[in-house]
Amino acid sequence: MAGEYYIGIDLGGTNIKGGVVSSDAEVMSSMSIPTEADKGADHIINRICSVVDEVTAAAGMTRQDIAGMGVGTPGTLDTKAGVVHLAPNMPLWRDIPVVERVQACTGIRTVLENDANAAAFGEFWAGAGKGTRSMVMVTLGTGIGAGIIAHGRLIHGDTDCAAELGHMIIERNGRLCACGNQGCLEAYASAVSLVRRFREAVEAGSKSVLADDGHAGDDLDARMICDAALAGDELANRIFHETGVFLGIGIVNILHMINPARLLISGGLIKAGDLLMKPVKATVEMKALPDARRNCDIVFASLGEDAGFIGGAGCALTAFGTSQ
Amino acid sequence: MAGEYYIGIDLGGTNIKGGVVSSDAEVMSSMSIPTEADKGADHIINRICSVVDEVTAAAGMTRQDIAGMGVGTPGTLDTKAGVVHLAPNMPLWRDIPVVERVQACTGIRTVLENDANAAAFGEFWAGAGKGTRSMVMVTLGTGIGAGIIAHGRLIHGDTDCAAELGHMIIERNGRLCACGNQGCLEAYASAVSLVRRFREAVEAGSKSVLADDGHAGDDLDARMICDAALAGDELANRIFHETGVFLGIGIVNILHMINPARLLISGGLIKAGDLLMKPVKATVEMKALPDARRNCDIVFASLGEDAGFIGGAGCALTAFGTSQ
Repeated sequence: MAGEYYIGIDLGGTNIKGGVVSSDAEVMSSMSIPTEADKGADHIINRICSVVDEVTAAAGMTRQDIAGMGVGTPGTLDTKAGVVHLAPNMPLWRDIPVVERVQACTGIRTVLENDANAAAFGEFWAGAGKGTRSMVMVTLGTGIGAGIIAHGRLIHGDTDCAAELGHMIIERNGRLCACGNQGCLEAYASAVSLVRRFREAVEAGSKSVLADDGHAGDDLDARMICDAALAGDELANRIFHETGVFLGIGIVNILHMINPARLLISGGLIKAGDLLMKPVKATVEMKALPDARRNCDIVFASLGEDAGFIGGAGCALTAFGTSQ
Repeated sequence: MAGEYYIGIDLGGTNIKGGVVSSDAEVMSSMSIPTEADKGADHIINRICSVVDEVTAAAGMTRQDIAGMGVGTPGTLDTKAGVVHLAPNMPLWRDIPVVERVQACTGIRTVLENDANAAAFGEFWAGAGKGTRSMVMVTLGTGIGAGIIAHGRLIHGDTDCAAELGHMIIERNGRLCACGNQGCLEAYASAVSLVRRFREAVEAGSKSVLADDGHAGDDLDARMICDAALAGDELANRIFHETGVFLGIGIVNILHMINPARLLISGGLIKAGDLLMKPVKATVEMKALPDARRNCDIVFASLGEDAGFIGGAGCALTAFGTSQ
């Protein structure tokens, strides 16, 4: 056999994605099915195992051809023990010994990873982070997730809480965050914050194609603001600019702490392209120490929704690969 | 021979400290001499080499007994190339190939390290960080320095700029920092900031044993404020409390990024003991995610001024040790 093959699983509250990936980071097969998280943990485990079966078959392989598996999952977890304690959007996915359960049903040795870490590792291994030894990826979603790679390895921290960059305080006594604190990056630069700041501006009298008579529609979301910004809406543009400035401050702090060779930004908001990137880079240029920013490329992630499962497979390669 | 022996050098603008340290982190000999930095780079190199000779002799050894050397130095440097580019308080210590020069005169293989990193590694190896695999040390001095250790290794970053935690922004649009930015941790929690905030409070009308008629003495320094606080001066106490709150916010950000098993605070200000530690811990308790703080001990450093040279020796052990 030319190389080894690994399975990566990206478990989300909505979908389970999975695929077979070669040790050269080539995707041999992939698929996505609904998680059906409301049907309980046993059901989720079974769904994961059926993804394993299907992607293995789709790659023309059997389980014996798979050298290991990595499962990325949201929530609070213990990667060493292989247990997920708590996941925000999956109330029945609680204190689940994922590694043990999945290994029992598939016979494939398995490693557990935080979903943001897995996605970061995917980009590091096969995407926009390729070729570096140190990288940080910041993912802008409902919240802000991140993964930090130094010396070619993910930094998990002592209790798997590293890279909780959404809760980095950038403004003491600032905006209230969902975590209960004030001034967290997430309260300024997440997709949810983007929508909130847009609404506030509309309520304060700003005009926009998305607003009518001082009110934005109830169904307003970040994607709509992004589309409006790209179509030239002035308020939507301003809100994206602000988001980039806030994110830039967070990135300055990351550069000063980790000094990575590359900084990736991912998540739906990156569709805004330069509307987001320009203020990020201008803020970093203005506020980061020259030596910390000079060699750091700030780029968008390139693997999109596939980063998670590819990274899961990469984590399995790191854990079990013979050539590592 | 029972173990290997390493030399650590802590080069500062004022003094050069050095010592022989065993691979078990036992200090066999140590000394300190003035740097005489104004006499130029050649002179400094000679001073380092004479410290090497003297501590070797004091340990009853010859150069052949020394397995390696680590030199910690302030400033902008390239640890891979072994070159110091720029040091703030040593204008003549510029673009110096320290490793090459020191190796040429001592015949001992040498590794270069940032001084804050070396001190952090010293505490990790032999001091208050002992027994952990991940640790961050924050040093409160004129500025704020730091060292980050993850997976048992120092994080240097891509261009030796990691752990520049003094320039972490904790208040967007906040106090002006010496770096030209606003809101850096250093502008709130360094010894210099402590004195500045004390002066501001006095000028705004606060009473203190250190103030007379709305003015603090020109010779006021952090040590005097510390002594006054310990003696019960109300303003000095308040200023220390604020310092602890600011530092606590910085530490929250560190815990959320690195999630270390231990967080050390070092520098002259730690003489204030609980006056500093209590507000730090209260702030962390209030603002850090429970999982990120639960297992993290926040403690004072224990090696004092010796951390730098001990850490230098530890870095040499890491680089050259046969058992590592």
